[in-house]
Amino acid sequence: MTMLHMPLYAQVEEVLASNIADGTLPPGTRLPAEHSLIERFAVSRTTIREAIQNLIRRGLVEIQRGKGTFVTQPKISQDLTRLTGFVEDMQLLGRTASARLLDQETVPANQTVSRRLGLPLGTLVVRIRRIRLADNLPLSFDETYLPRELGEKVVQSDLEAEPIFSLLEEKYDTPLMEAEYRLEAISADSIVADALGIDAGSPIFLIERTCYSEGQRPVDYEKLHYRGDQIQFVTRLARRTGSGPQTGER
Amino acid sequence: MTMLHMPLYAQVEEVLASNIADGTLPPGTRLPAEHSLIERFAVSRTTIREAIQNLIRRGLVEIQRGKGTFVTQPKISQDLTRLTGFVEDMQLLGRTASARLLDQETVPANQTVSRRLGLPLGTLVVRIRRIRLADNLPLSFDETYLPRELGEKVVQSDLEAEPIFSLLEEKYDTPLMEAEYRLEAISADSIVADALGIDAGSPIFLIERTCYSEGQRPVDYEKLHYRGDQIQFVTRLARRTGSGPQTGER
Repeated sequence: MTMLHMPLYAQVEEVLASNIADGTLPPGTRLPAEHSLIERFAVSRTTIREAIQNLIRRGLVEIQRGKGTFVTQPKISQDLTRLTGFVEDMQLLGRTASARLLDQETVPANQTVSRRLGLPLGTLVVRIRRIRLADNLPLSFDETYLPRELGEKVVQSDLEAEPIFSLLEEKYDTPLMEAEYRLEAISADSIVADALGIDAGSPIFLIERTCYSEGQRPVDYEKLHYRGDQIQFVTRLARRTGSGPQTGER
Repeated sequence: MTMLHMPLYAQVEEVLASNIADGTLPPGTRLPAEHSLIERFAVSRTTIREAIQNLIRRGLVEIQRGKGTFVTQPKISQDLTRLTGFVEDMQLLGRTASARLLDQETVPANQTVSRRLGLPLGTLVVRIRRIRLADNLPLSFDETYLPRELGEKVVQSDLEAEPIFSLLEEKYDTPLMEAEYRLEAISADSIVADALGIDAGSPIFLIERTCYSEGQRPVDYEKLHYRGDQIQFVTRLARRTGSGPQTGER
């Protein structure tokens, strides 16, 4: 058993990590108390603490203030390889998507919105704010900005039931061709934190997405705020853009 | 001027945003004090505060505790479209890359490392920890795990001067073909915060990257911790994977 190469804390860490991986300690379970881990592994308090610190660093367990140390829920792994909407993403993951509409308003485009949609500053646009849920867990707080004419049609639909991508493509003759994604890691401000039911300051994936229809026409600018503790994005990238092997190229 | 459609705070916000965008208020400048903004715009304190709150939300200015409100440095926009190393990325951005080697050790593979590199748990691997700098600013804290044989060759080089990708490809006959990227938004723990010179709890982009050589052989597993306040990743994704138009598809 190669485990014997490992220092004591690492052995404890890996036994607990295996227990988590194989479901002996399922997501949401409280870790056994320190004294019972000390007894079980016959190691010192320091060793147990070091093992648990490492499990925290690896994201396998988390401290819930005043309650103890719990096995974390595994993050959703979502592909980032194709322009897809929230409902499509959740369907691919076998989860049920739903939405809560917060508001829909006509607002003047600020500098970012006007630049992304290719409109003069202050042009009226339609802003739709929704909470997107996966199996009833708030996962993303979305702000969608649409050019006014298109937006005023879209808001006539039930935006808790119908995905905006479907409305654009199927009802309003606006095929989506591609999108630019800008990904950032930020802290939740109080608006985002309230919307998602998390603490202000929690890590958030901010995705600014500008969708283009035919002729490189921007038709939809979104700010998607995903809970950092709930999701990871996965992609594969090739080393060379060309086809043949070209070793030595910088 | 369409600005007149906008509420007062939004007008103030956009004037300040323009000043930032056109360089009248360059990155790192302190915003004028509240009372001078009140005078300049002839609006109330509440209006100025609302404008500044929005600029903070947009990431254009930030509060530095005890010092005031400052124009933020624009984030580095890095393409996420091809497997590239840190030095290559910084060259493309016109920045000077450097590295500080923290340590290089032979360690037993934990569960994640062993899974990613396709090795049994506890197998000895080489771990290299470095801080990567862009124009002397610490930007990323990298942990690189290499299979032992390859790693023991790599650590004989000066890892502050030579990129690991170059060593693998040019010196050790290990062409890189592609990589899997897993992106997360997390909070900096104390190790990452110390390495990057930021506060613990600051938002971090964690990229777990597994690089594959020929024959889908994993040869390099990395945990890259980028400062969330310094970088954004940009990509473009197409709606359809096929070529022809197929409207109506879900």
